[in-house]
Amino acid sequence: MRLKTTMLLAGLTMATAMPAYAGSEIKTLIDMLHANGTVSDAQYQRLMAELNQNQQQAAEEKAVVEKKLAEAVKPPEVSVSTNGGLKVKTRDGKFETRLGGRVQADAAAYGGDPEMGDGTEIRRARLYLQGRMYYDWGYKLQYDFVDDGASGIKDAYLSYNGFDNLEIKAGNFKDPFSLQEQTSSKFVTFTERALPSAFAAGRHIGVMATAQHQHWTLAGGLFGDTVSSEGGADDEGWGAGSRVTWAPINNKTAVVHLGLGLNYRETGGIDSARFRQQPETHIAGINILDTGTIATVNDFFKTGAEIATVQGPFSAQAEYITTSVKRDSGSDLDFDGWYAQAGYFLTGESRNYKNGKFGGITPKANVGEGGIGAWELALRYSTVDLNDADIDGGEADSMTLGLNWYPTPTLRFTANYVDLLDVDGGAYDGEEPSVFQLRSQWAF
Amino acid sequence: MRLKTTMLLAGLTMATAMPAYAGSEIKTLIDMLHANGTVSDAQYQRLMAELNQNQQQAAEEKAVVEKKLAEAVKPPEVSVSTNGGLKVKTRDGKFETRLGGRVQADAAAYGGDPEMGDGTEIRRARLYLQGRMYYDWGYKLQYDFVDDGASGIKDAYLSYNGFDNLEIKAGNFKDPFSLQEQTSSKFVTFTERALPSAFAAGRHIGVMATAQHQHWTLAGGLFGDTVSSEGGADDEGWGAGSRVTWAPINNKTAVVHLGLGLNYRETGGIDSARFRQQPETHIAGINILDTGTIATVNDFFKTGAEIATVQGPFSAQAEYITTSVKRDSGSDLDFDGWYAQAGYFLTGESRNYKNGKFGGITPKANVGEGGIGAWELALRYSTVDLNDADIDGGEADSMTLGLNWYPTPTLRFTANYVDLLDVDGGAYDGEEPSVFQLRSQWAF
Amino acid sequence: MRLKTTMLLAGLTMATAMPAYAGSEIKTLIDMLHANGTVSDAQYQRLMAELNQNQQQAAEEKAVVEKKLAEAVKPPEVSVSTNGGLKVKTRDGKFETRLGGRVQADAAAYGGDPEMGDGTEIRRARLYLQGRMYYDWGYKLQYDFVDDGASGIKDAYLSYNGFDNLEIKAGNFKDPFSLQEQTSSKFVTFTERALPSAFAAGRHIGVMATAQHQHWTLAGGLFGDTVSSEGGADDEGWGAGSRVTWAPINNKTAVVHLGLGLNYRETGGIDSARFRQQPETHIAGINILDTGTIATVNDFFKTGAEIATVQGPFSAQAEYITTSVKRDSGSDLDFDGWYAQAGYFLTGESRNYKNGKFGGITPKANVGEGGIGAWELALRYSTVDLNDADIDGGEADSMTLGLNWYPTPTLRFTANYVDLLDVDGGAYDGEEPSVFQLRSQWAF
Repeated sequence: MRLKTTMLLAGLTMATAMPAYAGSEIKTLIDMLHANGTVSDAQYQRLMAELNQNQQQAAEEKAVVEKKLAEAVKPPEVSVSTNGGLKVKTRDGKFETRLGGRVQADAAAYGGDPEMGDGTEIRRARLYLQGRMYYDWGYKLQYDFVDDGASGIKDAYLSYNGFDNLEIKAGNFKDPFSLQEQTSSKFVTFTERALPSAFAAGRHIGVMATAQHQHWTLAGGLFGDTVSSEGGADDEGWGAGSRVTWAPINNKTAVVHLGLGLNYRETGGIDSARFRQQPETHIAGINILDTGTIATVNDFFKTGAEIATVQGPFSAQAEYITTSVKRDSGSDLDFDGWYAQAGYFLTGESRNYKNGKFGGITPKANVGEGGIGAWELALRYSTVDLNDADIDGGEADSMTLGLNWYPTPTLRFTANYVDLLDVDGGAYDGEEPSVFQLRSQWAF
Repeated sequence: MRLKTTMLLAGLTMATAMPAYAGSEIKTLIDMLHANGTVSDAQYQRLMAELNQNQQQAAEEKAVVEKKLAEAVKPPEVSVSTNGGLKVKTRDGKFETRLGGRVQADAAAYGGDPEMGDGTEIRRARLYLQGRMYYDWGYKLQYDFVDDGASGIKDAYLSYNGFDNLEIKAGNFKDPFSLQEQTSSKFVTFTERALPSAFAAGRHIGVMATAQHQHWTLAGGLFGDTVSSEGGADDEGWGAGSRVTWAPINNKTAVVHLGLGLNYRETGGIDSARFRQQPETHIAGINILDTGTIATVNDFFKTGAEIATVQGPFSAQAEYITTSVKRDSGSDLDFDGWYAQAGYFLTGESRNYKNGKFGGITPKANVGEGGIGAWELALRYSTVDLNDADIDGGEADSMTLGLNWYPTPTLRFTANYVDLLDVDGGAYDGEEPSVFQLRSQWAF
Repeated sequence: MRLKTTMLLAGLTMATAMPAYAGSEIKTLIDMLHANGTVSDAQYQRLMAELNQNQQQAAEEKAVVEKKLAEAVKPPEVSVSTNGGLKVKTRDGKFETRLGGRVQADAAAYGGDPEMGDGTEIRRARLYLQGRMYYDWGYKLQYDFVDDGASGIKDAYLSYNGFDNLEIKAGNFKDPFSLQEQTSSKFVTFTERALPSAFAAGRHIGVMATAQHQHWTLAGGLFGDTVSSEGGADDEGWGAGSRVTWAPINNKTAVVHLGLGLNYRETGGIDSARFRQQPETHIAGINILDTGTIATVNDFFKTGAEIATVQGPFSAQAEYITTSVKRDSGSDLDFDGWYAQAGYFLTGESRNYKNGKFGGITPKANVGEGGIGAWELALRYSTVDLNDADIDGGEADSMTLGLNWYPTPTLRFTANYVDLLDVDGGAYDGEEPSVFQLRSQWAF
């Protein structure tokens, strides 16, 4: 208040108010002393010269400091971050490089028949290099070290993202089919996908266009064969696939998802097909259902219907998949299967949904930062039928109870109890194995 | 102007001109007021003390700011950059680490005889870690995931670069032989190297010294066997190789290159040799030419002559390679082959040449930055003859037409049409297959 | 001195000493001139207003500069470093990511019997990604490209480090057994470990807790089978192991280490065991000792005693390991072996010891920085006996002379001469091969 009054008075006093500058009061004082004769004309001139020179020098020094400061506080051209793995990107968005991976270490104990050997395994051990180049181009190479040679190549593609919400890919990647297959193995609710993954479309080398919007996605692609398919005198197999998803509700805590997938495949030179399925456990390596090699198969066609929802900590999803197999000799075959699952986060998190599939969990409070992570209980029923006409692949249904603990967004511990309710037909007709399985996982 | 006049007058007025410093005019004024008695001696002393103290303090503050500023604008000790992959280096040049890779996704359709199966493949999927340590030492590890186990190990070496223009390597790397083999698969003009790559020397474990100057290179090495060669009771094979190149003209848009390569190899315990060649396509996996296993081969010797040129957007290269095989039983054998190719950049770029081999293309204007990338048309004739004495490996010649599109320095799309003009001898005698092949590639 | 006197006088002169501030002398002068009537009241008010305004503005500008400066000199949130490989960590210690690897390129020449083929190999070619997440969690994935598929997976685990000096791991890693096995292959004194590595416990999938203190470590774990063990109808093998080490002396140049390891393993479904050993060379791939498959083995138990010391440039270590094999049919078996080795750094370095095992060498002066690196001479005697009851695996003892050159902490060149003194029993009874072996290694 005092200052303001002083300034007001000063303003009134000054006949010709001038903008103050640093040290202007000395100029004013000298002017006054010159006006009242205390300072002579010659002295005045000398003082003014010195004053001007000093002010000029001060301004120059200030400019130098400000230039250096501006330079110093500028954010770096390239930013590096890590929260598991590595992410490097240029400030202008022109380039980005990410390095990451995952390890899933499992152990299983089995009960009932058939005999399955208790044991352990590294289920997946992957590294990937992924990035963006020259704004509009993307790339990825991901390898799984648990596989042999070329069959370990997972994503290996190039993409163009220069159109809004549209991605065009060329290389090796997943066919657009089935919600549980599109969802990364890092993020599926149970250690293994449900029995209808007997009809998974897998990865093939091809080209695909995907439109991704908040409330819908549409993908369509043309594919050759798998990375590990060998050449030779016969043509490799090829296929085409499309998937459309619609999410009329899609926000952070509420999702309604509907999806439809179509997948056609010609078998090429191998001229056969085989469908099989493990009892939702991978360690024993036993296919509880198996059509064996079905001869003279020219092509087969899969259709899948998907429904899923998230309501706060509750989530549910279900899929029905049917596969029609065309044979040159013998009647056509139809196999199908479905599953339904529900999960609940005891700690209140919501399942993450984006671009027509589920993503990772971010705990409300991490272990190591005062929290207990995220805890999820889940239940699943699944069934698949590989019996038709002369093919006796077997039919099975199973119930799975799961508990997930996510101490941090990069970690997960899972315990699953799988009860095969009944196997009907096939090599294990009438048997009812049970599985207790544990997993520790890091992934980023 | 006014300022200058004022300063001039001031200069004249001042009997003893003193250098001005920040705020010196207040000192001058006080001196004047003291001299004319307006300020008393006691007041003068007090003012001077205050003035000195303030000036000292101001100087200290300024020094602190300048020190902090100097620290703040200093470039970081470690610089990180990405334009595809990752490059980290210390400012003093002591350490450098690079991470990169490549993926080539191919598709091919075949015509004519023999039957070759249309299909797709990931041709190469590589990661590498490479760098410099303690100024003078280099290292590299590169792996190709399309191969099985140890055979996927490509470059895996240690190098010493402490001498000017001289590199000494130990580990696994390419023998110094043949221009098209020295040129990385990322940068060769067509999807596959020409037919004489039947005589490629490949990679072996060994030691090599390479002198690299602008107008010439000279490399010589001593090698054991390949990474995947197994031990046992018999000695592994070994070899020696040398390559000299001369580039009397070598600037950004004009190159004349001449080269000569010599490569000797003893077969060791396997005591045999085999030469074979695919019809400039890899997907079908069919060797159109194949000597089969030639028994009782003690050693063979390869000689290669190279010529190449760049004239603005035009480039051409040709090689002739001959292989002499010594047998313990049966006459000695001579096989040979050659190719000639020419390319033209429709968009005006020049092929990049350095250290006796060709490098990558940098488009004049990238896609995504207002350009259309680089476009190159190329034509190649190649032939190889694996018939001699009792060996009926076949002879073939082929014509290849290629179109390359490089949207950015890290990307490439290639379309090749290969016409096998005639196969003479061997398992596919008289057949004339044709190949249409596409590739998408990212590499950095 | 003059200044101090002036200030002292000034101090005495000032009745009411006030703290000086930047430009305070002008205020003092104006006060004086106002007091003696040279400056009028109105002029005084105007001068004070201007002075206040200028000081306020100067203070604001200074605050802005200081804020920017503080921001500019703040160390970055994420630090990146490289001295071979890559290390990225956040300043708060929450995340850390490391990327590294190793390549060992070997050559060997053999003398005496049995016939072993001279040759070369890439002994190890590894990459790893390792790090810390959310303060308390660690992870690692390391792969060796010289192996096929899953068997190349080395460390692949998750760890919790939230307790002081205690680490809990889950995944694939080494059993806690034997000093020479715990010491990384990068850091063992000779190219190959001593003959008793016939009893190495290797890596298994399991869980382990390790307490690590300066003067002792204690580890205990429960393990399943190896990564590459296949499932099926039979249970996989499992085991348990513990190791305690005591280092009553442990400083930079003096160490005394004592250790005891216990390792139990049930064979599971394979119901057999096999112990074998190469003659301290890997290239030829010949097992000079081999029990063959011992049938009906339910379990075996290993005990190992360790002693080691460092005294300045001198180091020595010795181990004795015994293995008791229980058979369902046939008597129990006992195999054992021991080695003792000594090394001396001609250049004065000391062997690095930490957490119950040996680490890498840091030369006193690196090559490329004015030094000659570290030079070490070493000698080893080792023996192992695989003969017992009806099992004729052979017994051998060998003498090894080694020279190590570490030009930098990341590099190593090793020459070893191994003399198998005598093979007694087994397939190579009475033979006495010798080995000359060279290695170049980069590792970080």
